[in-house]
Amino acid sequence: MLPEFEELHLLIPGPTAVPEDIRHVMTRPMTNHRGPFYKALLAEMVEMAKQVFQTQGRLFVLTSSGTGSMEAAIANTISPGDRVLGISIGSFGKRFQIIAERFGAEVTPLDFEWGEAADPQKVAEVLEKEPPFHAVTITHNETSTGVLNPLEEICAVINQLPDEKRPLIIVDGISSLGAANLAMDAWGCDVVTTASQKAWGAPPGLAFIAVSDRGWDAVQKAQSPRFYFDLREYERYFVNKGEPPWTPSVSVAYAMHEALRQVLEEGLENVFARHARVAQYTREGLAQLGMKPFARGHYSPAVTAVRVPEGWSPQELRRRLREEYKIEIAGGQGHLADSVVRIGHLGKVTEADIDPLLEALARILG
Amino acid sequence: MLPEFEELHLLIPGPTAVPEDIRHVMTRPMTNHRGPFYKALLAEMVEMAKQVFQTQGRLFVLTSSGTGSMEAAIANTISPGDRVLGISIGSFGKRFQIIAERFGAEVTPLDFEWGEAADPQKVAEVLEKEPPFHAVTITHNETSTGVLNPLEEICAVINQLPDEKRPLIIVDGISSLGAANLAMDAWGCDVVTTASQKAWGAPPGLAFIAVSDRGWDAVQKAQSPRFYFDLREYERYFVNKGEPPWTPSVSVAYAMHEALRQVLEEGLENVFARHARVAQYTREGLAQLGMKPFARGHYSPAVTAVRVPEGWSPQELRRRLREEYKIEIAGGQGHLADSVVRIGHLGKVTEADIDPLLEALARILG
Repeated sequence: MLPEFEELHLLIPGPTAVPEDIRHVMTRPMTNHRGPFYKALLAEMVEMAKQVFQTQGRLFVLTSSGTGSMEAAIANTISPGDRVLGISIGSFGKRFQIIAERFGAEVTPLDFEWGEAADPQKVAEVLEKEPPFHAVTITHNETSTGVLNPLEEICAVINQLPDEKRPLIIVDGISSLGAANLAMDAWGCDVVTTASQKAWGAPPGLAFIAVSDRGWDAVQKAQSPRFYFDLREYERYFVNKGEPPWTPSVSVAYAMHEALRQVLEEGLENVFARHARVAQYTREGLAQLGMKPFARGHYSPAVTAVRVPEGWSPQELRRRLREEYKIEIAGGQGHLADSVVRIGHLGKVTEADIDPLLEALARILG
Repeated sequence: MLPEFEELHLLIPGPTAVPEDIRHVMTRPMTNHRGPFYKALLAEMVEMAKQVFQTQGRLFVLTSSGTGSMEAAIANTISPGDRVLGISIGSFGKRFQIIAERFGAEVTPLDFEWGEAADPQKVAEVLEKEPPFHAVTITHNETSTGVLNPLEEICAVINQLPDEKRPLIIVDGISSLGAANLAMDAWGCDVVTTASQKAWGAPPGLAFIAVSDRGWDAVQKAQSPRFYFDLREYERYFVNKGEPPWTPSVSVAYAMHEALRQVLEEGLENVFARHARVAQYTREGLAQLGMKPFARGHYSPAVTAVRVPEGWSPQELRRRLREEYKIEIAGGQGHLADSVVRIGHLGKVTEADIDPLLEALARILG
C-alpha cells in the first residue's frame, strides 16, 4: 500500500511546485493527439516556447525528461568520430560529455572547478589552439553548483571564429530557460533544450528542443542512430500534418500550454527580474544564517547551492526540514553530497515561498 | 487562441478515454521524484506491472511513448551487424524493422499480408533454414489491422530451437498488454514493452519495458549507443536507491499507478474476458451494418479495423461521427487510409461505450 501522500513545500531544482490551476488543467478529458484540438494546442505551445527561447528557428516538443532532450541534441547533430568540446562546471556539464561519448564523439573535456563559471577566454584559447571542433556542449545554468554560465560572452567568442573553425553551440538550457535571459538567435546558439518541470511551474514529462538553420544542416548530416528522438521525423509530421510523430504526453501538454501562457502573460522581462530578485533574497537570507553560497559569483537565478554550517550534514538538515516543517530542499550532487544543500527557486516562486525556509532554518540552526 | 475544448467519446486505439477518477489523481501536488513517496509509488507500479506482464524478471518505467519503448528494446539488446528477423503483419511490425535498421541491425523482414496473422510454421521454417538470428521482433497486437498475433505459438516454435539457433524474442505488447493474455515468462519472451495510454485507461507519457534474464545478458553486451533509454542506468538507480535515473513523468505516474491498481482489482482474467467480449460485440454490431472486419481471423480484443461501406470514405465517416455525434474513431494507416476505419475498444471500455457508435453509424449509413 502506498504511504499517505504528504504535501511538501517544494524548493528543489525540479520538479518545481505546480500551482493548483495548472494541475487542474490536467483533469481535462483525454483527446486524440491527431485531432484538431491537440494540433492547435501543439502549434500554440511551439509558438509560445519560441518566444521564450527567443528564436524563429525550428522547435520541437519531445515526450521525455531533460536528459532525453540532451540525448536528442547529441544524436541529431553528432556523428561517431566528431570532435566535441565539452565545457563543464558541474555534474550536468559532465552528463553532456558522457552522452556525446556514448554516441561515439571524440570529446575534449574543458572542465572548470565546481563553483566557478566557464571562462570565455579559456574557451577562446582552446578553440584557437586546437584543431576544429564539430560542436561545443555547454550547460547554461549548472544546477549542481548554482552557477549561471556567461553564455552570451561564450557564444560571442565562439561566433567570431572563422566559419571553418566555428563549432555548433549546443546548449543545455534545461534549468535556465524561463528563469534567465537566453536569446538563442541573437547570441547565435545552434541547439537549445529545456524541460517542463523547471522554470515553468508545469509537471515533468515534456522536453523542448530548438534548432538553428546551421544546426538543422547538421541534423541532415548526422550519422548517429536515432528514431524516437529523430528530429527529421518530428519535422516531417509537423510540416505535413501539424502533428507529433509519436503519441505525446497529452495531459502534461495541457499543463505546459497553460504554464507557457502564464509566463508570457507575466512578461519575460518580469519573469527574469523576479527570478533574479528571489535568488538574491534567498542568498541574503541564507547569509544572515551564516550559510555561504557554494558558487563564487555568477549566481544562478534558478538554484542556490550553499554549504551547510559546521557540525551539520545535508542529510540531517534536509530530514529536519521535511519532518518538522514539510519543506523539501535538495542535497548536493557528486562530491558535494556531504557538504552542500541546494534550494530551487525557479518557476512560480516568490519571496513568500522562501520565507518559510529561512524561518525554519533559523529555528533548526538555533 | 486555443479553440474551445470539445469532449469527444474516444474510441481510438490510443490514447484511450481516461476516467474522471484517474484524471483527478493528477491534481495531487507535485513531489520530489527522489523522495519517499515517489519511491514507494514507483516500487508499487513496477510490482503491479509485473503481475500484468506475468513476469518475475526486471521491469522498468520509461518517460516516453510506446515508440520510445520499442527503441529502448532495440538499443539495449542489438549491436550493429546483428541479424534480426522482423516479423510484420502491419505498420507497427514495420516500425520495429525500421528501428532495428536504424541501429545497424541486418534485418530480414518476414512480412505477412495485412489482415493476416503471422504463421508460426513460416516463422519456424525461416529460423531453421537461415543462419542464426540474434533476435526476432514481433508485434503482439497489430493496431493497424486489428489482428492479434498467435504469440504463444510463435514463442513455442522459437523456444524449441537448439540454444545456438534460438534468437531473443522481442515483443511489442504496446496495445495488447492489459487487453489480452501475455504470459511473458511462461511463453519465454525476452523483452516486452507497453505504454500508459493503451489498455489501462491512463494518459500517455509513460512506457514499460520488461526483460528476461536472457534478455538482460544481451543488455550487458549490446553495443548500440544509448543513454536516456540505457536500462543499465535504470537498473543501477533502482537497485541502489529505488529511484528512476532521470526525472519521470510524475503526474502520469500518479495516474498510471491508480490505473494499474484498478486493473488488478478487476482481475486479469476478468479484464481479458471483458475485452474479448466487447470486441466481439463490436464486430457483430458492425456486421449488422454491413461493415466487415479487415482482419481475416485472429481478431484483436483491443481494436477492430473495418472496411467502410461502398460509396463512403473513412474521412467523411469520421467527420460526420465527430461533428454530429461527438464520437472519435481512427482512420486507416498506410495503404488503408482510404478504405478502413479503426475502432479502439481497449482500456475501460464496455458494451455501453460501443452502443452510441453503432447507433450513430446506423443513422449515418441509413
